[in-house]
Amino acid sequence: MNIKITGSGSYIPNQIVTNLDFAKHQFLNEDGSAFNASNEVIAHKFKQITGIEERRYVDENLVTSDIALFAAQKAIDTAKIDPETLDYIIFAHNFGNVKQGAIQGDAVPSLAARVKQKLRIKKPKCVAYDILFGCPGWVEGVIQAQAFIKAGMAKKCLVIGAETLSRVVDIHDRDSMIYSDGAGATIIEATNDDGGILAHASATFATDEADYLFFGNSFNKNLDKDVRYIKMQGRKIYEFALNEVPKAMKDCLDESGIPISEVKKVLIHQANEKMDEAIIHRFFKLYNQETPEGIMPMSIHKLGNSSVATVPTLYDLLINGKIENQEINKGDVIIFASVGAGMNINAIVYRV
Amino acid sequence: MNIKITGSGSYIPNQIVTNLDFAKHQFLNEDGSAFNASNEVIAHKFKQITGIEERRYVDENLVTSDIALFAAQKAIDTAKIDPETLDYIIFAHNFGNVKQGAIQGDAVPSLAARVKQKLRIKKPKCVAYDILFGCPGWVEGVIQAQAFIKAGMAKKCLVIGAETLSRVVDIHDRDSMIYSDGAGATIIEATNDDGGILAHASATFATDEADYLFFGNSFNKNLDKDVRYIKMQGRKIYEFALNEVPKAMKDCLDESGIPISEVKKVLIHQANEKMDEAIIHRFFKLYNQETPEGIMPMSIHKLGNSSVATVPTLYDLLINGKIENQEINKGDVIIFASVGAGMNINAIVYRV
Repeated sequence: MNIKITGSGSYIPNQIVTNLDFAKHQFLNEDGSAFNASNEVIAHKFKQITGIEERRYVDENLVTSDIALFAAQKAIDTAKIDPETLDYIIFAHNFGNVKQGAIQGDAVPSLAARVKQKLRIKKPKCVAYDILFGCPGWVEGVIQAQAFIKAGMAKKCLVIGAETLSRVVDIHDRDSMIYSDGAGATIIEATNDDGGILAHASATFATDEADYLFFGNSFNKNLDKDVRYIKMQGRKIYEFALNEVPKAMKDCLDESGIPISEVKKVLIHQANEKMDEAIIHRFFKLYNQETPEGIMPMSIHKLGNSSVATVPTLYDLLINGKIENQEINKGDVIIFASVGAGMNINAIVYRV
Repeated sequence: MNIKITGSGSYIPNQIVTNLDFAKHQFLNEDGSAFNASNEVIAHKFKQITGIEERRYVDENLVTSDIALFAAQKAIDTAKIDPETLDYIIFAHNFGNVKQGAIQGDAVPSLAARVKQKLRIKKPKCVAYDILFGCPGWVEGVIQAQAFIKAGMAKKCLVIGAETLSRVVDIHDRDSMIYSDGAGATIIEATNDDGGILAHASATFATDEADYLFFGNSFNKNLDKDVRYIKMQGRKIYEFALNEVPKAMKDCLDESGIPISEVKKVLIHQANEKMDEAIIHRFFKLYNQETPEGIMPMSIHKLGNSSVATVPTLYDLLINGKIENQEINKGDVIIFASVGAGMNINAIVYRV
């Protein structure tokens, strides 16, 4: 028995927000002081470091579980399965449904249960739950689906990653330019087909790292101290990711027994282009190799960082030939890898 | 190999809140109209139905992950394990950390990661994540720990259920009297000892039931519409639970192969005494049996409904002989069962 992705879907929100759209924002330093650069200069530097030109925001009337449903329906359709045969719906997010203009997240009932309701799945033994694991939540959901299948508790699972970070950003923080909205979903099945998940790795670094990504106050000190936003210590995350993600990927690849030369693509969490490039170079350096051209497909330029949604969205775009000059084919070995709040890191070595 | 609970801990918050402490609250009907009974009459009827005399609230300075830590430390101590040997920390909650006076929940980083940090566990491969599954979250966390152990991905897991419902109640809603705060934790281990988990059942009913428990506006129509509170459709939940929970428990017991006569105790989610009594009677009726005296230990009278924390807290009190006229002993078969937002139902048949 192998465990494979048999269908995928993603949802790219409608609203395109360019770097220049932030020109009207009053960016501040962490201490609340005015920022000593024009927003045009900030936008230029921002693009150089992160690679982000545009990001997507959901329409006003939508929440996270709505866009998750769009992606989930596509995943079910492409897997050509009867949704009533699903044993689990695993939904990775970190903030719940946050309505436009509201500051509270809502996850009662779980977003997975809402998707199940909208998919009109009646079977009670399709168990719907949410997992909170930072940006690596979707990858972790796949690892959990694999556990249920291996333990004989499931045959087919729907694993979703969806988030609307546009609803939790501090508009006075330049880092708000990184975040975006999105949803990706996959069907994970026990199958007699070749390939599938060959190895996985998962880790939580919480000793010094727990607050590298956190929920904190606005840089605008005049705003309500009880209202908090997604915040990060960018430099610390960069150094942490550079040290730990390549090692986790190597552990995982070595466990799979696949030689580095056989790896066709690395699908890494779209956090920051410069960081992702540094990670991939260091990963290949661990094998004394140059980084092969085009091994790391990117979606960050047009889609930004949509947290849990980046990796399944990237996979969905890639498998459907929607990333320029990029393709994956049956039999190819790919690596999924992610890093985010916790701080959590995970990876999966997978044969398409 | 068997999978057993090898340690447990719970935290009973300090503040005792009696039914009469609600006398100062202005209770309203759902439509915002004044309630046609004195608070003394309400308190009396409330106790008759729910069994609740008192409930516990956490001190002002504490949040959910703090009280989880207290319970987790006790579970580790009683299991006599080195915390560095833990492979998973699974934390069930539904609202994140909600500070006193704030209305936002916070789960970035995950509460599991915060507990890991406070326990000073350094091993990265101790994976810390949160699960949202309504009140049955702790039982579901145990089922997931079992899956990881069966799949060869873990040997020792810490499973926590903790919540501070006092921070999300609508003081104008009589149902606010039901909810309380609490934390329970257990160590789940692969062992050569006899007994352990014999069977489990888990289900999500979302077709008509998804909004039986939800996050909604205050009954006081003058309050901010963007602020929401825990809300329930009590009558619908009662009927649903009465129809479905006994069946799920029977499915689980039948799968275990254990005869009903061997069941020593049923540890059921402390939602409402009358409801729990109706469930247990119907469960035994499915086997054409009278309900044995004392089979269902209760903690609701003094502790109220602390969501995910009720079942692990009840287990911890029971195993430590802290519930009057109640005991469990090595070799006894017990059933854990829960029902809550989703709507989710689950059960575990377990030999101590």
